[in-house]
Amino acid sequence: MAVTLDSARELDRQDPLATFKERFALPEGVLYLDGNSLGAQPLAARKAVTETMDQWRDELIKGWNQGWFDAPERLGNLLAPVIGAGEGEVVVTDNITLNIFKLLGYIIGQRGDGGGVVLSEGGNFPTDGYIAQGFSRFGGHQHRFLPEGESLEAHLDGVDVVVLSQVNYRTGALRDMAAATRLVHAHGAEVIWDLAHSAGALPVDLNGSGARYAVGCTYKYLNGGPGAPAFIYVQRGHQDSGWQPLSGWHGHAAPFAFEADYAPAGDITRFRTGTHSALAYSALEASLAMWAEVDMHALRDKSLAVSELFRDCLADLLEPYGIADITPAAGERGSQVSLVAAEDGFAIVQALIARGVIGDYREPGLMRFGFTPLYLSFEDVWQAARHFREVLESGEYRESRFKVRSAVT
Amino acid sequence: MAVTLDSARELDRQDPLATFKERFALPEGVLYLDGNSLGAQPLAARKAVTETMDQWRDELIKGWNQGWFDAPERLGNLLAPVIGAGEGEVVVTDNITLNIFKLLGYIIGQRGDGGGVVLSEGGNFPTDGYIAQGFSRFGGHQHRFLPEGESLEAHLDGVDVVVLSQVNYRTGALRDMAAATRLVHAHGAEVIWDLAHSAGALPVDLNGSGARYAVGCTYKYLNGGPGAPAFIYVQRGHQDSGWQPLSGWHGHAAPFAFEADYAPAGDITRFRTGTHSALAYSALEASLAMWAEVDMHALRDKSLAVSELFRDCLADLLEPYGIADITPAAGERGSQVSLVAAEDGFAIVQALIARGVIGDYREPGLMRFGFTPLYLSFEDVWQAARHFREVLESGEYRESRFKVRSAVT
Repeated sequence: MAVTLDSARELDRQDPLATFKERFALPEGVLYLDGNSLGAQPLAARKAVTETMDQWRDELIKGWNQGWFDAPERLGNLLAPVIGAGEGEVVVTDNITLNIFKLLGYIIGQRGDGGGVVLSEGGNFPTDGYIAQGFSRFGGHQHRFLPEGESLEAHLDGVDVVVLSQVNYRTGALRDMAAATRLVHAHGAEVIWDLAHSAGALPVDLNGSGARYAVGCTYKYLNGGPGAPAFIYVQRGHQDSGWQPLSGWHGHAAPFAFEADYAPAGDITRFRTGTHSALAYSALEASLAMWAEVDMHALRDKSLAVSELFRDCLADLLEPYGIADITPAAGERGSQVSLVAAEDGFAIVQALIARGVIGDYREPGLMRFGFTPLYLSFEDVWQAARHFREVLESGEYRESRFKVRSAVT
Repeated sequence: MAVTLDSARELDRQDPLATFKERFALPEGVLYLDGNSLGAQPLAARKAVTETMDQWRDELIKGWNQGWFDAPERLGNLLAPVIGAGEGEVVVTDNITLNIFKLLGYIIGQRGDGGGVVLSEGGNFPTDGYIAQGFSRFGGHQHRFLPEGESLEAHLDGVDVVVLSQVNYRTGALRDMAAATRLVHAHGAEVIWDLAHSAGALPVDLNGSGARYAVGCTYKYLNGGPGAPAFIYVQRGHQDSGWQPLSGWHGHAAPFAFEADYAPAGDITRFRTGTHSALAYSALEASLAMWAEVDMHALRDKSLAVSELFRDCLADLLEPYGIADITPAAGERGSQVSLVAAEDGFAIVQALIARGVIGDYREPGLMRFGFTPLYLSFEDVWQAARHFREVLESGEYRESRFKVRSAVT
C-alpha cells in the first residue's frame, strides 16, 4: 500500500488524541468505521448507567430532584462548547424530527398570520423533509425542496425558513455555515441547521457563524448511546419570541405550579416537552463530560489525516474495480469517506463486515466510512484499508452470501 | 388501630400476588406509596439494561437489527393485554404530551378543512391542556376547558375532540370509559383517553369500551423506569385514515428506502417519529414481560383491599386533625388514596418521608398515596398507617424542618 504499517504506527505515536481510545469499550476484532451511525461506548457511560439504575432503585421519586429533572439544560451546557454555543443556548431533548417541528413552529409563529414557506434540502436525510411536510400540511404552509446540487440563492424567494444540513449524510459534503446563514438572513428568511453529521465530527461554530437555530443528535459522533436524546440550539437573543407548538409541562415557566394555561419558560427550557428518560441522559452525560476535554482543532486535524490515509491506501484500487471516490476535498467535508461502486458496493460492505470492518451502505452503490478520531488509531485505519484491498483482490465479495440484500443494511 | 398487625399478615398469607414483591429491587427501610409517580425497579429491568449496554458495546450499529428498531411495536404488543387492546393496536413511543398532539392532528385532519374545537378537562394533569392549547394555537383551532366537576354532556356541542383522563391524577376519581365514549361518539366527536393513572393500576378495557384513541405512560404503575417511553393506542379500524402531523422517518411506510416524500406506514407504526433510546426500551420491556403474568382482576381486588386497609387504619384520626378523605368510593377510583389537610398537608408528607414513608404532595393541601399491589404487602400498608398515626400523635410534623417548601415536592 502507499503507506506502510510502520509509518501509520509512527503517526499514532505522535497523536495528541491517542489516549482517548482507552476510554472506550470496543469489541475485540472489530475495526469500526460506522461511528457516523452509532458511536462506540465510553467506559464512563457504562458506569453512569449503572449508577442511575442504583439511583432509581434507592432514591425512587426523589431522583427527579437529584439531577434528572434538570438534565436537559445541564447536558445542553456541557454540549455547548463542542458546537460553538454559549451557556443557556442549548437544551438536550426529544429527537431531531420533533425538534425541527418545534423550531419551524416557533419561527413561523413569529412571522405573523397566514401561510409560510418552508424550504428543505433534497438529498438531505429524509426525516428533515418528512417533518417539514407534516408541519406544512397541518399548519397550512407550503413546503418546497431545494433540488440537490442547485444553488440555495436561486430558491430563496418568498421562503420563510430553510432547513439545511451542515454535513450531507451521504456524501459528507460540508456547507459553509457562516456564508449560508448570511445569505438566508439577507433574504429575510431564517435557517435551521441540522448538525447530525457535524456535531463531534469537526469544530462547529454556531455563534461565530451567526446561526440562530440548530438541531442535532448525540448518538453518532458524540457517543451518547443508541437513540440518545437530540438537542436544540437557539441563539440567546431569540429565545423569548413566542410559543413553540409542542407545548408540554416541562417547557412551562412554572412546571410544578400545575397552572391550567400554558406559559412558556423565558429561556431555552421552553423547547422541552414532557418527561424524558433518566437512563438515556445518564449515558450521554458521561460521554459529554469526556468531550469537554477534547481539543476540537486536534480532532479535526486527525479526522482529515486518518481519512486521507484511508484514501491513499486505496487510491490504486479505484479504477481497476470501478469504484468512484466522491469524498469532498479536505476543507469541504465532514469526517467520512464516501465511495461508490454501483454494482458491487453492497457486496463489498458485507464482505468487509464479515472481516470485522464495519462501514455502512446506502442505495444506490454508496459505501460510507466514518472516521471518529477519539477511538480510531492510524493503525486501525491502515488495517481497515488492508482488509478492503484483500476483499477486492481475493474476489471474496463476489460470494453469493454477500450479495443477498435485506431490508435494513 | 382498627386493624391489627396480625390480621394484615394473615391477608398477606392469602394474597395470590404476594410473590411478585420478590421480583422488585426495593430499598431497605422504605415504605413506598408513590408508585403512581415513579414505579419501583423490577430486578429484570436491571438485568435487561446491563444486557443492552453489552449489546451497544459488542454489536454496535448491528443492534438496530437485533431488536432495537422494532421495540416500539413489540413492546406495544406486550402492553396491549394490560389495557384491553389487541395485537397491532399499541405502539410505545415518545411521551404523553407528544402523543396527544399526534392524535389531535390525526383526528382533526380527518374531519375536513377549517378549524376544529378541542375540549380538555380542567383539573386534568396540566400537560394535556398545554398541548391541546399548543395544537389549537398553531393549527387555527379552538381550545376549551371542561370546567372541573361539570357535566361532559353539557359541553360537547360543536366539539371535535375531547381529551379525558380515565383516572384523575389528584383525586383518583375513575371515569366510566364506556359510557363517556358512547356519549362523545353520539355527539359526533372523538375522545382521546389519557391512561397515565389507570394503565397498570386497574383492569382497563379499551376494546370493550369502544375507545378508538388513547395515550398513557409507563413509568408509574407499569414500572418502566424514570421517564420510560409512553404509548399510543389506536383501534384497528381507525389506523389508516391520514397523516399524523409529527411525521418522521420511523413512521414512514418504508423507512430505509430513504424516499424524499413522506408516506405513512399503513398501521400503528405511523405514530412513531424518530430514533428512540434502546436503553429506555429495554428496562420497560423487562417490566412488561412480568406484567404479562399478572391477573388484572386479582390486582384490582388487592388494590382496593390495601387502600381500604390504609383508610380504615386512619379513619379515627381525620376529624381530630382536620383532614378530609376525598378518596372516591371503591368502584369509582383508581389505585390511590387522597387526603386533604389544607394547613399541614405538606408538613405531614415531609415528616412521613423522613420516616421512610414516601407519598407525595400537591398544592393545595393534597396528600396522595398510591397503592401498587405488585410490591406492597398488607403489612407494608399497615406499617405506613402506623407511621402516619405516630407523625400526627407525636406532633413531629409541626417541626420547622418539615414546613419549608421547595419548588419541587
